[in-house]
Amino acid sequence: MKFGGTSVASVQRMRAVADRLIARRTAGDEVVAVVSAMGKVTDELLALAHQITPHPSMRELDMLLATGEQSSIALLAMAVQAAGIPAISFTGSQVGIVTDSVYSKAKILQLDAARVMDALAQHNIVIVAGFQGRTADGQITTLGRGGSDTTAVALAAGVGADVCEIYTDVDGVYTADPRIVPRARKIRRVSYEEMLEMAASGADVLSMRSVEFARNYGVTIHCRSSFTDQPGTIVKEADSLMEDAIVSAVTSDTSEAKITIRGVPDHPGVAARVFSTLAGANVNVDMIIQNISEDGQTDISFTAPETDLHRAGGALEAVISGIGARTWTIDDNIAKISLVGAGMKTHPGITARMFKVLAAAGVNIDLISTSPIRLSCIIAQPQVEVAVRALHTEFGLDASA
Amino acid sequence: MKFGGTSVASVQRMRAVADRLIARRTAGDEVVAVVSAMGKVTDELLALAHQITPHPSMRELDMLLATGEQSSIALLAMAVQAAGIPAISFTGSQVGIVTDSVYSKAKILQLDAARVMDALAQHNIVIVAGFQGRTADGQITTLGRGGSDTTAVALAAGVGADVCEIYTDVDGVYTADPRIVPRARKIRRVSYEEMLEMAASGADVLSMRSVEFARNYGVTIHCRSSFTDQPGTIVKEADSLMEDAIVSAVTSDTSEAKITIRGVPDHPGVAARVFSTLAGANVNVDMIIQNISEDGQTDISFTAPETDLHRAGGALEAVISGIGARTWTIDDNIAKISLVGAGMKTHPGITARMFKVLAAAGVNIDLISTSPIRLSCIIAQPQVEVAVRALHTEFGLDASA
Repeated sequence: MKFGGTSVASVQRMRAVADRLIARRTAGDEVVAVVSAMGKVTDELLALAHQITPHPSMRELDMLLATGEQSSIALLAMAVQAAGIPAISFTGSQVGIVTDSVYSKAKILQLDAARVMDALAQHNIVIVAGFQGRTADGQITTLGRGGSDTTAVALAAGVGADVCEIYTDVDGVYTADPRIVPRARKIRRVSYEEMLEMAASGADVLSMRSVEFARNYGVTIHCRSSFTDQPGTIVKEADSLMEDAIVSAVTSDTSEAKITIRGVPDHPGVAARVFSTLAGANVNVDMIIQNISEDGQTDISFTAPETDLHRAGGALEAVISGIGARTWTIDDNIAKISLVGAGMKTHPGITARMFKVLAAAGVNIDLISTSPIRLSCIIAQPQVEVAVRALHTEFGLDASA
Repeated sequence: MKFGGTSVASVQRMRAVADRLIARRTAGDEVVAVVSAMGKVTDELLALAHQITPHPSMRELDMLLATGEQSSIALLAMAVQAAGIPAISFTGSQVGIVTDSVYSKAKILQLDAARVMDALAQHNIVIVAGFQGRTADGQITTLGRGGSDTTAVALAAGVGADVCEIYTDVDGVYTADPRIVPRARKIRRVSYEEMLEMAASGADVLSMRSVEFARNYGVTIHCRSSFTDQPGTIVKEADSLMEDAIVSAVTSDTSEAKITIRGVPDHPGVAARVFSTLAGANVNVDMIIQNISEDGQTDISFTAPETDLHRAGGALEAVISGIGARTWTIDDNIAKISLVGAGMKTHPGITARMFKVLAAAGVNIDLISTSPIRLSCIIAQPQVEVAVRALHTEFGLDASA
């Protein structure tokens, strides 16, 4: 049972989480909980670090940030114990979550569940710090965004849990963002692959890494609300019980920007040079398009998260004169909209239908990219709501009124 | 170099500490720093725990409190690094400070200095979390009051440091509390034994445990101000360079209360039963006196910290009718004043001089206890200043005007 920072933001909410753990335990289940830092604690610690220095070392930042979850687990264990139920807390390091040494975004390499199993055997509710681990030589690391979800999935795999319940402030995965599409429906079951494509294309309910981890270890995720007892969305291997929709969800993402490099000489290796430079600067390039060449010159466009723009700019300044390109421009007024659905594999013609619907809604398409179960377009940001609603209706996703 | 919570209470002070570490390093020394939690952080964490439950488990409390020092070390390492000097922080657990499992007041059992030595060899200023360690099986523990001093002394012993500098908000050890005796002088050098007696009798500059540790491992302590560069007080093995005063200091302590059990049957074993019960309740009994028996009954008085009174009361209620005593009373309006000096061993007659001076000052003596180098009396609390000043003058400790 994983609870995010909002769920443990106050002493009162911490008690509510304790009650949920106890209820589940009383119902006869063995319970392992994973919690994040309380509310804004991580942000406060970051602010403190930045008061010390604008560029703190990642190792020391991880040392600092790891205290946030450590406080949460101790307080939650106290809250459970206060109700007379045995509980014990462990840091990531203590439960043997061994990671690589990429501070601030470490990846879990292995996990020794023995300590958790022992503590469960002693009838404890076991409470583990999310978002953190240690390197093989004992350095404290954090797992980066969505890290607590990954901790939860990894622990679920390690102890062989029936299910990994991820409690959030939404009550499941929807066919579209309900703030955009009021008639969006909760999806009861979704496959890992679809969930991954949805996460990659803007659905921020579950982090991609945790879903990948779940797929790799066959962990069933139940994504549900921390405020109700209603079932949420089950994420698991595709099976015959899943809804057989061609399109399962329409997602949108306004957090990317489009960068266009103009007047690029159309020689072999030029694009490779651009994108290897961007990769070296840790710019997360998403979609790429290269226009048809005219007069031996071409334009290259790509999208990347707006948060990477600063790094992208630095990298491009260095490379642009080297390759003899003319200039580069940024457009951050874009949105990516995507159709995701396992049924798309076997249904050609989805692209044509998408284009037709968007044209009818007066929406221009800029870049396009596809995967076997996803189809994404870049459009102008102000048109995102119109486009998503039109597609949601077209592919039969609207809830009956 | 050990810095307490006040010295790192803000980002600004944290930078000042970083500057001190760097200055020492630049002067050619290898530097290991030990720091406490920032300012009031420990108190805030305690308050949070008590909001969850009035009686948190000590294990979880240690898990929680240990985060305070962990934050400090990370921020201090960042501050040193920001000045371009390599630094690395370690938790108590990471540097192999292994303790027993008495949560909240664990004792250091062993320390593996290899990691600190490695980090020093790589030219780092090494920054270690005070006040904490881990048990042999990896549980996080805290060392209780004065624990950061003990961490510093233990590390100094482990790495074979020339000196363990303990930075505080006073500039050394004085012949008396300067707030009581304006003419008190700073002591340049003092032996472990005298320092221990002074700590036991009210001088709160250094914790007893850290001085005991220093004595056991031959660590020289330099107790000095975090605000100036003036030398403070050196605590080390007695040697010929030390001032040869009969009395080195006059200390006072108003934190104890006196408990008197009246009408105790004067049988063998009765006192043993009382004090073993108190010990079982973790009451820190200091001085004990048993009056001369009358009619087969006697009164037993003892002193204990006021903070132990609640536990003492509970223990006494249980034992008092069992031994057939009449009643018990508490007097918390007392003070303990002490003379401490290695020279007292070889100078009889100090007791007589003390009585004479106090009598001349109109101060009544209640209980008395002695050690080879200390002489303590319990007096009425309102007379403590008069008594300390009179003794300070009598034994030649006043600074020349």
